[in-house]
Amino acid sequence: MSYDRASVRAVLDRVKAEGRGSLNPAECRALCTAYGIAIPREAIAASARDAARMAAELGFPVVMKVVSPEILHKTDAGGVVVGVKSAAEAEAAYATIVRNANAYKPGVRLEGVQIQQMLSGGCEVLVGALTDPSFGKVVAFGLGGILVEVLKDVTFRLAPASETDALAMLDGIAAAEILRGVRGGAAVDRAALARIIVAVSNLAADFPEITELDLNPVFARADGATAADVRVLVDFASPKERYRPSQEEILRAMNRIMRPDAVAVIGASPEDGKIGNSVMKNLINGGYAGAIYPIHPKVPEVLGRRAYKSVKEVPGKIDVAVFAIPAPLVAGALKECGEKQIPGAVLIPSGFAETGNVELQEQIVAIARAYNVRLMGPNIYGFYYTHKNLCATFCTPYDLKGTAALSSQSGGVGMAIIGFSRSAKMGVSAIVGLGNKSDIDEDDLLTFFEQDPNTQVIAMHVEDLKDGRSFAEVARRVSAKKPVIVLKAGRTALGARAAQSHTAALAGNDRIYDDVLRQSGVVRAMSLGDMLEFARCLPLIPTPKGENVLIITGAGGSGVLLSDACVDNGLGLMAMPADLDAAFRKFIPPFGAAGNPVDITGGEPPTTYQNTIRLGLADERIHALILGYWHTIITPPMVFAKLAAEAVEEARARGIHKPIVASLVGDVEVEQACEYLFDRGIPAYAYTTEKPVAVLGAKYRWARAAGLL
Amino acid sequence: MSYDRASVRAVLDRVKAEGRGSLNPAECRALCTAYGIAIPREAIAASARDAARMAAELGFPVVMKVVSPEILHKTDAGGVVVGVKSAAEAEAAYATIVRNANAYKPGVRLEGVQIQQMLSGGCEVLVGALTDPSFGKVVAFGLGGILVEVLKDVTFRLAPASETDALAMLDGIAAAEILRGVRGGAAVDRAALARIIVAVSNLAADFPEITELDLNPVFARADGATAADVRVLVDFASPKERYRPSQEEILRAMNRIMRPDAVAVIGASPEDGKIGNSVMKNLINGGYAGAIYPIHPKVPEVLGRRAYKSVKEVPGKIDVAVFAIPAPLVAGALKECGEKQIPGAVLIPSGFAETGNVELQEQIVAIARAYNVRLMGPNIYGFYYTHKNLCATFCTPYDLKGTAALSSQSGGVGMAIIGFSRSAKMGVSAIVGLGNKSDIDEDDLLTFFEQDPNTQVIAMHVEDLKDGRSFAEVARRVSAKKPVIVLKAGRTALGARAAQSHTAALAGNDRIYDDVLRQSGVVRAMSLGDMLEFARCLPLIPTPKGENVLIITGAGGSGVLLSDACVDNGLGLMAMPADLDAAFRKFIPPFGAAGNPVDITGGEPPTTYQNTIRLGLADERIHALILGYWHTIITPPMVFAKLAAEAVEEARARGIHKPIVASLVGDVEVEQACEYLFDRGIPAYAYTTEKPVAVLGAKYRWARAAGLL
Repeated sequence: MSYDRASVRAVLDRVKAEGRGSLNPAECRALCTAYGIAIPREAIAASARDAARMAAELGFPVVMKVVSPEILHKTDAGGVVVGVKSAAEAEAAYATIVRNANAYKPGVRLEGVQIQQMLSGGCEVLVGALTDPSFGKVVAFGLGGILVEVLKDVTFRLAPASETDALAMLDGIAAAEILRGVRGGAAVDRAALARIIVAVSNLAADFPEITELDLNPVFARADGATAADVRVLVDFASPKERYRPSQEEILRAMNRIMRPDAVAVIGASPEDGKIGNSVMKNLINGGYAGAIYPIHPKVPEVLGRRAYKSVKEVPGKIDVAVFAIPAPLVAGALKECGEKQIPGAVLIPSGFAETGNVELQEQIVAIARAYNVRLMGPNIYGFYYTHKNLCATFCTPYDLKGTAALSSQSGGVGMAIIGFSRSAKMGVSAIVGLGNKSDIDEDDLLTFFEQDPNTQVIAMHVEDLKDGRSFAEVARRVSAKKPVIVLKAGRTALGARAAQSHTAALAGNDRIYDDVLRQSGVVRAMSLGDMLEFARCLPLIPTPKGENVLIITGAGGSGVLLSDACVDNGLGLMAMPADLDAAFRKFIPPFGAAGNPVDITGGEPPTTYQNTIRLGLADERIHALILGYWHTIITPPMVFAKLAAEAVEEARARGIHKPIVASLVGDVEVEQACEYLFDRGIPAYAYTTEKPVAVLGAKYRWARAAGLL
Repeated sequence: MSYDRASVRAVLDRVKAEGRGSLNPAECRALCTAYGIAIPREAIAASARDAARMAAELGFPVVMKVVSPEILHKTDAGGVVVGVKSAAEAEAAYATIVRNANAYKPGVRLEGVQIQQMLSGGCEVLVGALTDPSFGKVVAFGLGGILVEVLKDVTFRLAPASETDALAMLDGIAAAEILRGVRGGAAVDRAALARIIVAVSNLAADFPEITELDLNPVFARADGATAADVRVLVDFASPKERYRPSQEEILRAMNRIMRPDAVAVIGASPEDGKIGNSVMKNLINGGYAGAIYPIHPKVPEVLGRRAYKSVKEVPGKIDVAVFAIPAPLVAGALKECGEKQIPGAVLIPSGFAETGNVELQEQIVAIARAYNVRLMGPNIYGFYYTHKNLCATFCTPYDLKGTAALSSQSGGVGMAIIGFSRSAKMGVSAIVGLGNKSDIDEDDLLTFFEQDPNTQVIAMHVEDLKDGRSFAEVARRVSAKKPVIVLKAGRTALGARAAQSHTAALAGNDRIYDDVLRQSGVVRAMSLGDMLEFARCLPLIPTPKGENVLIITGAGGSGVLLSDACVDNGLGLMAMPADLDAAFRKFIPPFGAAGNPVDITGGEPPTTYQNTIRLGLADERIHALILGYWHTIITPPMVFAKLAAEAVEEARARGIHKPIVASLVGDVEVEQACEYLFDRGIPAYAYTTEKPVAVLGAKYRWARAAGLL
């Protein structure tokens, strides 16, 4: 589709020159025409005979409306006739309209009578574009009327949207089935609707001054779609440009900051209990092997390391400076970092925007920009990078190396990450506090983690995305390689209110967040617990090769609950081929149920679990396994755990890597069995059927979005 | 409203006599008239003048239709004219219809022309009744058209429904707002709609033979509601009567079974590893103080207790017999129990309906009925009643006394209950396996737990309700006194399929379950984890006295997530009165946020937590507290736990009992702090913001349903 941008530019220039904030109907039509959006055909008749001819050409029925600069309210003036069905009626309507207009205002100046194709039938939908404070231009689609108004059944995508996006939007509303034709109604022309969505999204994206654009209703028929009413709002104020270094620049700085060879601690203190002391201890005791430079105005050394009065006195290169000094002192020290060409400053201190001191924060950002120093924080706990044994934080140290990278905007959530990680023995590559996000934010981290060989999954707690568009672009690229999990806090009206009082961040419409995050391949966690479990498990679970999930369960009751959980998590239970069904039946008692779930029944010996799990792993048509274990004396928890782990190990040795998760019901011994399985890379949970399925579901969501399924 | 049952009976008798399965339009109208349901007014005209007069009386516009036994397809015969707007048009239409009919079939026998009020405008809704396999007659309400068809936006209640039920149904659909008037449309006449719902529900309930009843559409206007189209299906086969002892009979038996003074173990065995041996050990080692009678055909004693060949040989009274013998031997032993007048048999053995052996199960049920023995099971783990130190089961013993009673249909879920209870130190009153539910089911248990002084909350895992109606009736009564939590397995299409292969139970439409359970005051748990947490926490949380929930948090980030969770769980954050806001502000730093959440900010000393929690407990306008703790060096986890518990203890001493839950984020020490708080009756969770709010939400749901709020 080629769009006539020049025409639109001309229209908008005129609107700007006239100082208007919206377009008139003719201008709206011009925009539609320029972008190939079908609108009702129309013509202006100067006589009754004209009217009859034009109406016949347009096709009946038509609507006829008076055109006069002196008549604003056409209906009041008797200047509108709808449902004109024939040439004779058109002639009569012309006469009526002219007569009424003259009666309404004697001697009125008439420019003619507009003849417009009258639309009806098909399905009324809405296509629009709006400017989101975080994501910028987004395109919207929904069914018209009450479905949009009452049920808020609308879906969004970043603009411009691709044809694939547009087609997905047609399926993205709750009432999607209507578009496919119900009650004997014809299916709508999906290609035509998608073209309009794409065109609207391009129109909005091409012209930043278009802040809102509404096609409502669009009549979607079996053979096309026409926008019956169009509204366009504009704002010519130039939007604030956001600081955005190139991906290469980001990477150059982030690699030095996150994996530094030399760290300065500004405000390093020999005094117990001081933040600058905790940071030093964590660095040293954490086993960081790089250079550590304490910076202190007076003392000659801190914890046995030579101290310097300023970073400028340090002889060698410094990659990152951790700030442990009060807010008012930050600006001065930051300038020195700039002069020393340190690429990153980790600003632990609070007392900036979060306490209302926006000015101070803007001041340090200006310094950072001037010297090209990237800022982490302020108002953060610092960060961890385990593969360098780096605990650049005043919190408790954490050193279990793994492949999960986590970040949080809030310090409290950061502490939850550390506690959970330690308790669940979750290996991490990095934990990062983002706090006020005066500079470094989620997209900088994503850019770093994307190429960090030690990171396989990225989980982020987010209260607001200062530049959602940039995040979405980077996330779309990164999530194609590594799962990106996002817990968006403030997603509900109440939560958003709390978010505003907390970080003064403008929380966007959650539906926009939801749709755009999905469009970007992000796996959204709906709770803190889910975010942590997904981060823990996704690196453990191999990527599935297909959609066929099989449940093998000793407890029929668990099988039912596991099936429920599959539906909740968008997983499809494999329809069992007859031969496979027969193969499973060989291993289970006659009153067990094959099919899916495979119910091996309680009271079975270890061999039954073993045989069925092995078969589940071996058969190529099965792509993922969910195990339901039931604690019995015949097959105690640890016996089950060992045989399951062994079967998986054997399969791995033969090159079979299938996602496998387990739910264990039984007495407390199942907890130890779960731990045993987790230690061997099999997510296993006690007393719950929903958690293992949720983590498998998250892996599937990611794999689908990444195009791996 | 008085209903004319005699007229309906007469109509149905005629339909029955004629062997029909549905009612004709006149019969449908007769039913509506008898139950006061407005239908379009109509009359039969014998002449054009008649037609004009009648139409004027009915009110224009009208529809006119030929009436002739010889014309089935009226429209084909040109026998229908719609939109007749005046007396003149009515006369003309009469002539047209008669002319067309004669042209269609010369010499046709005409009985006249029907003149019917033509309905339009307002809101099209659906009111219906259907027969659910589990719940029997239920009444349905939804908006008409695509909202019902595509979005399944329908709500159900047991029939007959009260006016309160009916009004709640109007708010129970997603599109409820439409009924209140949107886009300038008028609100519908809610009383009139509710009257129709109540009438339909009564009609269905009064006449068992009415299996389906559809009023679709009903035109709901600002000044009334009229059913435009009515359809009634009937089935005169008499439904199978279900065995239903009176509540007194149930109670008499259940009290002896659940709190027995003497237990016989049929199949008691001296041999390690045998089920009959495990049961004996659990009874003895569990500390059961009543009489224990081992029944064994040969051995003289089991585990030091004198054994008897049959229950009939036992000298004393026996309250319950636990069966630990193979299925084929059950019938014989059960007869002896009957002869001994033992009121209950706990049937551990499997090999009945669950393995396809329906006949054997029916046989034992027949014996039980004949001798008035109530059966628990078969195919169960048995049951626990801790306040009698009774472990009548072959599973691991459990003895932590408490007030939560739990039941499960599946043995696996039963084991999860035991494991979770032990791990979480959940005190229970009883754990009961229901298995095949050949006789005793959830409503028998509810009837027992209702009056059991040791039980304060009842949690049930349910795969099917064999008699959902009876369950709903009992649950409605019991839930007004004690929370009833239900985990309904097989709630999704996939889950229901698994349920069928598992218990051959017919899983009902989940929306019906959802609505009827809510109507019955049941708190529905959507996952096994939730069911267990609700059972654990609901007895700990005092009943709230109002809807004002306040969040006090040290971590702003937790505050946002806790607010999100409040919305998810239907909790409303209190709008802070100015004086209360000022009172909180006195305790928190100037950059903290008062309002709700009260963000005391991190880094605050214990006194800040203490002061704000005390104020939250003391102020009568606050009805429930959610605490968000953030692990810091200044206020370590145990310090927080102790001060919070102390504040609650002080309040309790002053007679203040407010629900209070806590979310703790921090390093692993928060786990110990959570345990400390739990031990003191304060639900507290680590690394999650959603769990504490979910349990508080469950308590609120119950309190609202029980009419306590």
